[in-house]
Amino acid sequence: MGGPSKNFKPKIAVTMGDPRGIGPEVVAKAFARAPVQQACTPVVLGDMHVLSQTVKSLGLGLRVLPAEEAPQEFPPGVLPVLPLSNLRPGKGRGEVPPEESSRASFVYIEKAGKMALEGKIEAIVTAPVNKGAIHKAGIPFQGHTEYLAEISGTRDVVMMLAGERLKVTLVTTHIPLETVAHRLHDEKILSVIEITNKGLQDFFNLRAPRLAVAALNPHAGEEGLFGKEEGIISRAVQRARDLGISVSGPWPADSLFYRVLQGEYDAVVCMYHDQGLIPLKLLHFDTAVNITLGLPFIRTSVDHGVAYDIAGKTLAHSSSMEAAILWAARMARTRGETQALNTGR
Amino acid sequence: MGGPSKNFKPKIAVTMGDPRGIGPEVVAKAFARAPVQQACTPVVLGDMHVLSQTVKSLGLGLRVLPAEEAPQEFPPGVLPVLPLSNLRPGKGRGEVPPEESSRASFVYIEKAGKMALEGKIEAIVTAPVNKGAIHKAGIPFQGHTEYLAEISGTRDVVMMLAGERLKVTLVTTHIPLETVAHRLHDEKILSVIEITNKGLQDFFNLRAPRLAVAALNPHAGEEGLFGKEEGIISRAVQRARDLGISVSGPWPADSLFYRVLQGEYDAVVCMYHDQGLIPLKLLHFDTAVNITLGLPFIRTSVDHGVAYDIAGKTLAHSSSMEAAILWAARMARTRGETQALNTGR
Repeated sequence: MGGPSKNFKPKIAVTMGDPRGIGPEVVAKAFARAPVQQACTPVVLGDMHVLSQTVKSLGLGLRVLPAEEAPQEFPPGVLPVLPLSNLRPGKGRGEVPPEESSRASFVYIEKAGKMALEGKIEAIVTAPVNKGAIHKAGIPFQGHTEYLAEISGTRDVVMMLAGERLKVTLVTTHIPLETVAHRLHDEKILSVIEITNKGLQDFFNLRAPRLAVAALNPHAGEEGLFGKEEGIISRAVQRARDLGISVSGPWPADSLFYRVLQGEYDAVVCMYHDQGLIPLKLLHFDTAVNITLGLPFIRTSVDHGVAYDIAGKTLAHSSSMEAAILWAARMARTRGETQALNTGR
Repeated sequence: MGGPSKNFKPKIAVTMGDPRGIGPEVVAKAFARAPVQQACTPVVLGDMHVLSQTVKSLGLGLRVLPAEEAPQEFPPGVLPVLPLSNLRPGKGRGEVPPEESSRASFVYIEKAGKMALEGKIEAIVTAPVNKGAIHKAGIPFQGHTEYLAEISGTRDVVMMLAGERLKVTLVTTHIPLETVAHRLHDEKILSVIEITNKGLQDFFNLRAPRLAVAALNPHAGEEGLFGKEEGIISRAVQRARDLGISVSGPWPADSLFYRVLQGEYDAVVCMYHDQGLIPLKLLHFDTAVNITLGLPFIRTSVDHGVAYDIAGKTLAHSSSMEAAILWAARMARTRGETQALNTGR
């Protein structure tokens, strides 16, 4: 895979997402931006017709061309597509049958996973799909992350949300707030700390990342007065320190993120979704990217859903997709450099 | 009480807090700042000796003078004290007996409450005390807020944290995160919405405040997929709208605070402590102020504790105390103007 050249352009597969959602639109808009084209050698796993129609309706000056499985260099202004479905909408997108659409959206992910495992690409960037709709089409799909973990034999993956000034990882994600406390165990927290640490080393060029772990309860439980989970978190932090990881906590969450902005830490391990996403979206509303750590390849994702309500209306913002592609490229370059350095020793 | 004059300087009682904590220091430092002296006619409820010693050890150019119960104008450079205790530390602060100290810190609050109820002052600003230590001294004290609510016969008070760009109120405060969901009831949420609305009208000159209510669960529970409490919140929001309040929600908390920064809302009603305090402290780390809404008088407070570990070391920052005094003065002026306008009609 790619060496440490300054001009190294990582090969990236971008899945088109649900054809009936805003995926095709944000992909097309992102590819029309020069920084995206300059940062990587991409290929979109999707549908030629849907993307051609989308480019046309958006009035973008892009040529949609068929591409090979191994991403290849194209001149600027090309949207290279590896055609994996053949959805022929008549007049409008609405005429693509939901079931065919959903099945196609899964095929793009399936192919991206295979290409990554075979080493044909360095990173996967995913546009949004509709889990429920894929299920209805008869495919037992639990989500991008779960699927990619399964096919790569990965036990523990971690969701990181990253922006320039703040990076957070989550111990729990999409569960009721009430159940968060019950899900906190030493092993789980320790695993998230370890994967966060390795991710920052591999992809962000930090030799000894400085990690902070957030407390669960207000004021970190004020010495057990309100909440006992800080004891569990403390044990996990101690175990991670014993492994040589530079980590501290649990810190009261309310003042912690300000301290990160002051440069005290490189990332925060958070106990629940909104604990990490409130500060992240406040600082990086349009430019944050969702990174899956722990997989044997790089995977980033937009931080929004299919948004059927605005699909086909040319209203979707592509900033999240652009950020997802640019971060994937940057992570791949950093990893390339790190590996080259390590090999050179 | 004060009219709508531009030069109206509200009368404010500032409690000195626990004599063994950083209260005396942050009070003295705040009074040495010109904006504080210009904004109000203050009186410190505290101890002459402790404050004189503090001013001396800090090398501040302030004269500590005894003051009457009704705050009066002093020339700049005066720290006016209504003496309510007679703690005579010998060489150092450490020699003030804890029990006498704690009892004195309660007396300052008691007096502030009386003065406010008698209309002698427009606002109370409180320095930190040690609840546990006051308890040990034989006084059944549950906290500033609870005490002031009790003596004024107030049933529902609301904690607001305010900065220039963001104002939040809390439905629950210092309880384990795990128990938050069980504490959410229509009546409680509705009451917080109503008190927030009235507070913004009375003290921030907003005729029809635009309120947002945060959801409890990630993605606002994604239509019940993870968490049902959004139904309770929805009902409370609907009831508040029926009362004519301009309020909406429950909104996913992660993107809500960014929308406030964009000018969409005047304040956010939050379900739990860190939900409100994470964004607040990120934006207003040093300058946020704690406001108790619902009382018949204005009360603001610092957002830190007694900090025994740094007390007497001249290390304490007074920015929070300065903000507490300045916000109290501003709220009193705004209320004065609003009342005068209403009376004038």
